[in-house]
Amino acid sequence: MNAPIENTDIHTLIQTYRKAVMAKDIDVLMGLYADNIVSFDAVKALQFKGKAAYRAHWQECMTHCPGPHTFDFHQLNVVSAPDMAFAHWLAHCAGTDDEGQAKGCWMRVTAGYQRVGGHWRIVHEHWSAPFDMMSGAALFELQP
Amino acid sequence: MNAPIENTDIHTLIQTYRKAVMAKDIDVLMGLYADNIVSFDAVKALQFKGKAAYRAHWQECMTHCPGPHTFDFHQLNVVSAPDMAFAHWLAHCAGTDDEGQAKGCWMRVTAGYQRVGGHWRIVHEHWSAPFDMMSGAALFELQP
Repeated sequence: MNAPIENTDIHTLIQTYRKAVMAKDIDVLMGLYADNIVSFDAVKALQFKGKAAYRAHWQECMTHCPGPHTFDFHQLNVVSAPDMAFAHWLAHCAGTDDEGQAKGCWMRVTAGYQRVGGHWRIVHEHWSAPFDMMSGAALFELQP
Repeated sequence: MNAPIENTDIHTLIQTYRKAVMAKDIDVLMGLYADNIVSFDAVKALQFKGKAAYRAHWQECMTHCPGPHTFDFHQLNVVSAPDMAFAHWLAHCAGTDDEGQAKGCWMRVTAGYQRVGGHWRIVHEHWSAPFDMMSGAALFELQP
């Protein structure tokens, strides 16, 4: 097995991404994506293609989660070449709903990156929760 | 944007993977994975780490889907460097249940690859269906 190349640029990009989502800074967030982003997001649709469609989806998601929240990344693994990389990690998302109830779950994340005009951009991302084979319900109670 | 490098090896690996799943040939299938595979499968658990754990899971999945089935891959996109690659696609899975009822759904797939000892291996995969934000139910009726 080739040892994964440590790529500080990708780690920095992932931290910028995490902070932009927490700050609901959609302009910083969208600046991280390639124009031809293909996203398999956790909710709503099979895929979102292109920045305009994905921006509208992110905007809606940010509107649906109004409170302060935690958004912690664990077990990050980055595999990198000079002009492309991929990464996967587990994300712990938590916050309070409209009635002040604490809600949280673990999600799985995979992302693909390419260097575009000297800048690393997210060209693909995949967020999900696993589901139960019998009931078809997403499994929000799982712990890593 | 750098143009994705066409990598015939990865396309061949993905076809071998598809055929091994359809043939329920677990030995061929498991031969495609790196020993340190980290899989975010669509069902049951947040992740499966290592070949032994993932083999047991695949064996269980194959047992739960006894009938003939379709397993078609669409919108495949591969991004590749000399020793690493990632790919994403939509998979249409269909078959008949115990009562002979046709069942089918679209899933999203992302995979990461590394060249290990001269051979390409799957080091990461992520299968999922999106879920409905309100009900938490997996969305099996979506069409691409």
